[in-house]
This record gives sequence, C-alpha cells and structure tokens, in this order.
Amino acid sequence: MCNKNGSPYEAPIGVFDSGVGGLTVAREIMRNLPNERIVYFGDTARVPYGSKSKDTIIRYSRQIIRFLQTQGVKAIVIACNTASALALEEVEKEFDLPIIGVVKPGARVAAGTTKNGRIGVIGTESTIHSHMYRQLISSYDPGITVYGKACPLFVPLVEEGWLKDPVTEEVAKRYLKDLLRQDIDTLILGCTHYPLLRSLIAGIVGDQVQLVNPAYETARELGCLLEQKGIANPGEKEPGKEPYRFFVSDAADKFKNFANSILPYDIETTRKINIEEY
Amino acid sequence: MCNKNGSPYEAPIGVFDSGVGGLTVAREIMRNLPNERIVYFGDTARVPYGSKSKDTIIRYSRQIIRFLQTQGVKAIVIACNTASALALEEVEKEFDLPIIGVVKPGARVAAGTTKNGRIGVIGTESTIHSHMYRQLISSYDPGITVYGKACPLFVPLVEEGWLKDPVTEEVAKRYLKDLLRQDIDTLILGCTHYPLLRSLIAGIVGDQVQLVNPAYETARELGCLLEQKGIANPGEKEPGKEPYRFFVSDAADKFKNFANSILPYDIETTRKINIEEY
Repeated sequence: MCNKNGSPYEAPIGVFDSGVGGLTVAREIMRNLPNERIVYFGDTARVPYGSKSKDTIIRYSRQIIRFLQTQGVKAIVIACNTASALALEEVEKEFDLPIIGVVKPGARVAAGTTKNGRIGVIGTESTIHSHMYRQLISSYDPGITVYGKACPLFVPLVEEGWLKDPVTEEVAKRYLKDLLRQDIDTLILGCTHYPLLRSLIAGIVGDQVQLVNPAYETARELGCLLEQKGIANPGEKEPGKEPYRFFVSDAADKFKNFANSILPYDIETTRKINIEEY
Repeated sequence: MCNKNGSPYEAPIGVFDSGVGGLTVAREIMRNLPNERIVYFGDTARVPYGSKSKDTIIRYSRQIIRFLQTQGVKAIVIACNTASALALEEVEKEFDLPIIGVVKPGARVAAGTTKNGRIGVIGTESTIHSHMYRQLISSYDPGITVYGKACPLFVPLVEEGWLKDPVTEEVAKRYLKDLLRQDIDTLILGCTHYPLLRSLIAGIVGDQVQLVNPAYETARELGCLLEQKGIANPGEKEPGKEPYRFFVSDAADKFKNFANSILPYDIETTRKINIEEY
C-alpha cells in the first residue's frame, strides 16, 4: 500500500543513535505512533560520538542513513544529541527523505514553556560544552538565558539500572543544585538516557520546574511530519511482519539486555552489521 | 650521553593510554624512577579502546608508537589495559624498542601474592569480559581462581574528582560485595583510573585483602628493564629540558585539568596532535 508519492505507508521509521540511549526515543514512537514500524540502529562500535569531530559525525550519519535506506525506511529520526546538532543540516541536504533530530523539538518546546526566561539543560559533557541547546533557544528567543550542567555519571548509572536508587538520587541532587539556584522554571533532559531518570529528577526539582523530554517531543514532531507528508500509517501493523527491528555495530548482547530493560516488550534478536560497508 | 648500544641515557620513556587513566602509570614512573624523562600520549579523540576490535587497537598502538619515536623515546610503556592485552605481542615484534604493558606486571605480582589461590580483579566492562587477567594468571598457575567484577561507575567517579566521597564509597561497597563473598585474598586494580581510589577500596576490603596496583608494578618492571638493557638514566634530569611532556589527540584542556589534579606538579602545556598522520 502506497500513498500518492509512492511511499509505502507501511514502511518503517529509521531511528539511530550512537548506542542504546536512542531507545528512549524509539520507545516514545512506539507509545505515541503505535501504527508505525521501526528499524533501530545503535552504533555501539563507535560510541561515544561526543568526542568526535563534525566531519566524522557527518560521515557516520551518512553511512547509517544509507544502511537504513536498505531497510526501506520512509523517514529518519536522529535519536542522538551530538549527531542531531552536527549532522542534521548536512544529511537533510543530501538525502531525499524526511529527517528530524532530537535537539530542535526539545529546544523549541522548552522555549515555549518557560515563563521566566530561565531554562536549564542537563546532558553529557560534550552536549553541554557544545552549547547546542543554548544556540538554538537563543535563535528562537534571544531574551532567554540557558544554564547548562554536564552530568557525566547519569549515563553509567542508567546503564547499571540504578534508576530509583539512593546513590543516583544523591548524585542527581548534587548535579541539580546549581541549576536550581539559578531559579530555572524549565529543565531539558538533554541526553537520550535521561528520560529514564525522569521521575527521580522530577522529585528533586519539584513542581515549579517543568521537565522537557526531547524523546517525547521528537515522537510528537515525527507524528506531525508523517501526517504533513501524507506517509503516516493509518492502519494496524501486520503482526507477522516484525514491527520493530534492531541493528548494532558491536556487542549485540549488551544492547539487547538494555533494550529489554526499558522497552515495553522483549526483543528477540539484535543483528550486528558492519556499518563501515555503507 | 649514550650507552654502548648508542641509546641516549637521557632519552625519555614513551607512555601511552587511550585517555587520562595512564597518568597514574606516569605518576608511578615519576615517583620510582625520578631520573627518567617522560613523553605521555593520551588518545583522547579515540577513547574508549575497550569497545574496539583487536585490529583497530593494534593500528592505533602502531600509530602512537611511531609518534613517540619522533620524540626520541628509548622505551615504551603501554599504560592501557586494552592495548596491553590486544596489541603488546604484535608491536613488540614490529618495533626495535623495549615495550612493556600494564597487564603482565599486575598479573604476575597478583599470582605471587595470593596465599589461598583466590584473586579478584576489578576493571572496566571490556577488561573484565575479555578475561585478560584470568588468562594470564592461569598461565602462571592454573590452580588459581580469578573472580572478575566490572565497575563501570568508577571511571566517571574518578573523573568527577569524587575520590573520598560517600557516594563513591557506597558504589564501591556494592561492587566489592560479591568479590568479598568469594573469599579473595588479593585484588587487582585492573583499570588505570582505580589507583586513585586505592585508599577508599583498601578501607572497604580490609587488611585481609592485598591490593595489587599494576601502575606501581609496571613502573618497577620498567626500572628493571632499563637496568637490564643498560639504558637507565644514572644522573639527574637537566631541569631546562622539560622533563615531562604531554600530548593528546583531542580536548587538551580537560586533559590538563585532570593531570593537574593527580600529578605532583602542575603541567603547563599539553599539545594536541593529529595521531592519524602517524
């Protein structure tokens, strides 16, 4: 079944990240767009992206999009903060496919949410030092001040599965103390792992701070984009067709364990591919 | 000043790691071999090595040794567990230089230390899953049982500078609990960051467990090697000649901050080089 542009409605969404973190974005797509199929790629052999140059990240993104095209995807979600900030503009020009990243949807919603013009962003060291959120938010509204705080322990704490844990709570209190002193009223969870700490962080920052989850905002924006382009899947996925497929560039087992701990169902197979071939 | 083989006594030792961790090895060389000069290279652009293939690690090690040769080094210390395990044998064949790694000295001392034949090893996930210490120790004495435990939070905790901290203590207690249940009498600090947690770990495991610090054992082995080869520097370093030099492949500032927090003196300059050119 195709729409008038020849795109199959039933074609999957391609979602990629440097590793497992982008699964929180895939999860939001599963929840919010339950008719859509997904092909996920985690670049576990080349993680982390944060320390790599812009040229390298563009090259990696290009390879991954080429691979996802072999899987017949109808749109691409860059579920990685670094690749969204560094490669989105370039690959949008190169590929004849709708492509969205996670940074813009989160930044736009945060800019629209703040009442006092004071937004906090937490993320990895590379995300915070790149000022990617600050620059985008300033382009929407130069009157907004953005305070960044790198939280390098959050990713390994999430990967240990210590999501509701006194250690994680103490670490989060220390990380968030300075931001709270800045009187922020909006906080962006600027790393794809952090939505898994959402309730713990909400408990620390309290009701006066609105949390912005770019994973959720990206899934919403993807829904709008599919409607606009006329390529949303109007019907149920056919159950026999393996609605969600997972590929990695290394260490498939570790990926599968993490995926099974956060997704609403157990994934059976994760395929390892040689991404350098694409 | 040269010895009979034409090696300059005053030539520096080349020390390399995937990042900052190997500085604990450099620190032990400074302490134990105060006459020796050092050229340190941290491959901060390509860290971590643990997730990369053997071929890649050999290629990286080869590039770094070629670069260190341009600095006139007389010997090489691979201050990285992954590269020691995967590349040492290969580069030893290729280069006409004395080369030692951190894994063998630690494994040998641990095998000679245990009384009850039960050794624990802590390290990164990749070090533990590779069983590099287990295999080596078995080759020295197949009667010894080695228990491994990955401690993925230790590196970011050390890099946060939380060395004597209730959070780090609680994390360490959880990580070490299973090893202590195995009745180990010897524990290898199998990651170059971990010597910075030495006193905290010693407080948890108690007097009945001997800690083995591969950084210290490597510096000792290096001293013996330099003596054997007749290339140890018998005199004081000339102060005008910048006895310790530091190079990185990316983000020199972050490296310098970490180095200044653990070395016995402040380093002034860290040079960034393009390691792919070597």
